[in-house]
Amino acid sequence: HPSGALVTAELPAKGSIVLVVGPEGGVSPEELAAFEAAGAKPFRLGRSVLRTSTAGTAATALVLGRTGRWS
Amino acid sequence: HPSGALVTAELPAKGSIVLVVGPEGGVSPEELAAFEAAGAKPFRLGRSVLRTSTAGTAATALVLGRTGRWS
Repeated sequence: HPSGALVTAELPAKGSIVLVVGPEGGVSPEELAAFEAAGAKPFRLGRSVLRTSTAGTAATALVLGRTGRWS
Repeated sequence: HPSGALVTAELPAKGSIVLVVGPEGGVSPEELAAFEAAGAKPFRLGRSVLRTSTAGTAATALVLGRTGRWS
């Protein structure tokens, strides 16, 4: 259901970024509403659904690479 | 031993990119020479050494994100 792609998302250059990776079955509407109420923004990682364990590593590497937090 | 960081490496916008991830113990000088003779360029992924299984996922996500191959 997330509309934006993490690979092109606008990301803060400073401060902490918390990544929440859902299960293969997806995040429930109730969970999504709770995350968004807490300030989270939903993004999809790619065109395919990755295993949760792979998605966490991939999303972290993507964010680290895109924000200059990793060099 | 790789000098450049993958996160800032110049990457081709088109064509295939083949990632070779070494074991935790590192790539041997003989292996490195063979890869370089075949046209490979050595890069490090970050400041710390990742497990081989994690490094492959992380490097793939980083390259996909940096080259627009993933959206």
